[in-house]
Amino acid sequence: MSDEALPRSLEHPLPSGMRDLLPEEAAERRSLSRRVLDVAALHGYALVTLPAFEFSEVLERGLGTLAPADVLRFIEPESGEVAAFRPDMTPQIARVVATRLRDRPPPVRLAYEGTVLRRRSGRARKHRQIPQVGVELAGVAGPEGDLELLGLAAATLRAAGLARFTIDLGGAGVVRALLAGRPEAEQRALSEALARKDETEVDDPTLRALLALHGGRDALVEGARLLARTPAAGAASALLSLFDAAVARGLGDCLQADLGEVRGFAYYTGAIFHAYAPGTSDAALSGGRYDELLSRFGAPMPAAGLALDLDRVLEARRAAGVSEPGPRRLVVVGPADDPRVAALRAQGVCAVAVSGRAEARVYARAWGFTEVQDRLDPDATLQPA
Amino acid sequence: MSDEALPRSLEHPLPSGMRDLLPEEAAERRSLSRRVLDVAALHGYALVTLPAFEFSEVLERGLGTLAPADVLRFIEPESGEVAAFRPDMTPQIARVVATRLRDRPPPVRLAYEGTVLRRRSGRARKHRQIPQVGVELAGVAGPEGDLELLGLAAATLRAAGLARFTIDLGGAGVVRALLAGRPEAEQRALSEALARKDETEVDDPTLRALLALHGGRDALVEGARLLARTPAAGAASALLSLFDAAVARGLGDCLQADLGEVRGFAYYTGAIFHAYAPGTSDAALSGGRYDELLSRFGAPMPAAGLALDLDRVLEARRAAGVSEPGPRRLVVVGPADDPRVAALRAQGVCAVAVSGRAEARVYARAWGFTEVQDRLDPDATLQPA
Repeated sequence: MSDEALPRSLEHPLPSGMRDLLPEEAAERRSLSRRVLDVAALHGYALVTLPAFEFSEVLERGLGTLAPADVLRFIEPESGEVAAFRPDMTPQIARVVATRLRDRPPPVRLAYEGTVLRRRSGRARKHRQIPQVGVELAGVAGPEGDLELLGLAAATLRAAGLARFTIDLGGAGVVRALLAGRPEAEQRALSEALARKDETEVDDPTLRALLALHGGRDALVEGARLLARTPAAGAASALLSLFDAAVARGLGDCLQADLGEVRGFAYYTGAIFHAYAPGTSDAALSGGRYDELLSRFGAPMPAAGLALDLDRVLEARRAAGVSEPGPRRLVVVGPADDPRVAALRAQGVCAVAVSGRAEARVYARAWGFTEVQDRLDPDATLQPA
Repeated sequence: MSDEALPRSLEHPLPSGMRDLLPEEAAERRSLSRRVLDVAALHGYALVTLPAFEFSEVLERGLGTLAPADVLRFIEPESGEVAAFRPDMTPQIARVVATRLRDRPPPVRLAYEGTVLRRRSGRARKHRQIPQVGVELAGVAGPEGDLELLGLAAATLRAAGLARFTIDLGGAGVVRALLAGRPEAEQRALSEALARKDETEVDDPTLRALLALHGGRDALVEGARLLARTPAAGAASALLSLFDAAVARGLGDCLQADLGEVRGFAYYTGAIFHAYAPGTSDAALSGGRYDELLSRFGAPMPAAGLALDLDRVLEARRAAGVSEPGPRRLVVVGPADDPRVAALRAQGVCAVAVSGRAEARVYARAWGFTEVQDRLDPDATLQPA
């Protein structure tokens, strides 16, 4: 078949937003997800594994009505019901907590790994696969649960090899209290304007002032003063207390505050946090408190969680020049059943045999092997490059 | 909301064939997949990560026309093309080898992990999620490649903790040579009858005789004699040679032969193998040679592969009483910021704090913690149960 005859799907062989990870990238991502899950396990979070799609009804119960353009849905043939690829794993966790785990005593500490599928939010609204590792903590209310998650957020980012990152702390209650009573459409328009940090679209001077209130503790003190006589007073002072408690737990180095933070607004009910590192195009980690979610599944319980976007964390690692030395991988110049190959593997060293010396070096270079061991001089190893 | 008002999808909350893994099972499966991928890595197989669905055209190019009832398909909204959940990852690997990896020198050694979605083959043809770890070896022809994969099959099953298993070796060429020249419908009917080991439906005495030819080397010697003057003579003697070479490589303990083996017949072109262990309801591992697959993607190359069905391997482990001691996991009786918790985690030990002694024991038992450490007597640890 000539190249011209190749069908379109072989030229552009993957559905929009899907991608393959080739060996180098796949190894890097797997190693990262292993580190993050290991940290979560140290903190008592147990892995659960969830299916890649669910009945739409389950996801909508957690996320609110899914905008048809934002989620990939299809008719599940056996039930005739609408299923959707998960755009978020939290509703799935809520379902599991409310059903199969409902008899276990709280707090429920679960970890998960998987890919979610979302539309990009830019002009070209294409799907994007987002590989995540996350945790959910159900049954621990207020600041104590928030502090556990903030600590875990910092621990996972450090385990990922990032030395420099910031965690921006906000509170969903602040903006919500200020918007309460306005018509829903107005609430939505204002929160979108706040998300864009677009002052011109914000009519209320107090809301507009929030846009400047980000930075260190001072911003929160200023916010508490500004909001003292507003319905957001309680939320603002709770946020200041949480900030101080997090600093007392050793998070002062990375913690920032952002009173105008509204991302995830519809979802979160309390603390909201996003972590950034130099070189990331978006938050490497996001989380917050959603105390109303589990009641929608019939198991009312306070809950909070966080998820790392592994691709963003890998971007940050690259930007920071973090590189993990991979394991030794040897090409042995010799026949397929060369006994040195079995001996190396028995020692836990990756080894393959290639029959010619020149071929061995080409093979090693192309496939990321670290050494070539020649048959003639078994003690000498050559660098493949 | 009363329980009666729960919608159907919460009572039976998952699409057919989907399931959640709760902590115990998720940990067990993840540990198994890690072991298998570690063995593959020792043998030079590099991980690639592939999307859960593809354009149907790519899968059909690899697998032949997909029976609409056997695959879950949907219209991918952005392209308007038909996409399908992969029922098999091999066509995806073939696509990657033929496109993004086409400039790397063979042999191509790739490993993968993921879930495939197939209809059950029983009367109730429901979907079933099958979690797999597999490898593909492209660019090594005939016995040398087959031996590499047979060795890897045994190594992965041993690494999974199975001491007793058999690998049944067959050859797609034997039955194919005997059926050649018959109309396609007849070929299909006969190979289905052979798959069911149903003598009554097999009109040809030579084919019928194959049904008895399974067991040790003797069965292959007998087969070579029986088939000596048939078009299958070459395939039968090649299979005997492969068997002997595999025994010479140390596989004599687990190797069996099955001349009437036809599963995967439409797909495989040479050696076929299936591994079984006591307690498994189906093959724990399957593999074989498919030398024609890569040419369908424009990159003609001999190729072979194998995949483990992780659920079947876990069944076999349970039947064999294989249990892996999990890591130490401690519940400390104390406040959330108890310094012992941080100290334990710093030593790599999982720890959480629970404030009351009785609650700590209940929590430990429910969530699989191994020890409870009381505040009053820090040196004494109690068993949770």
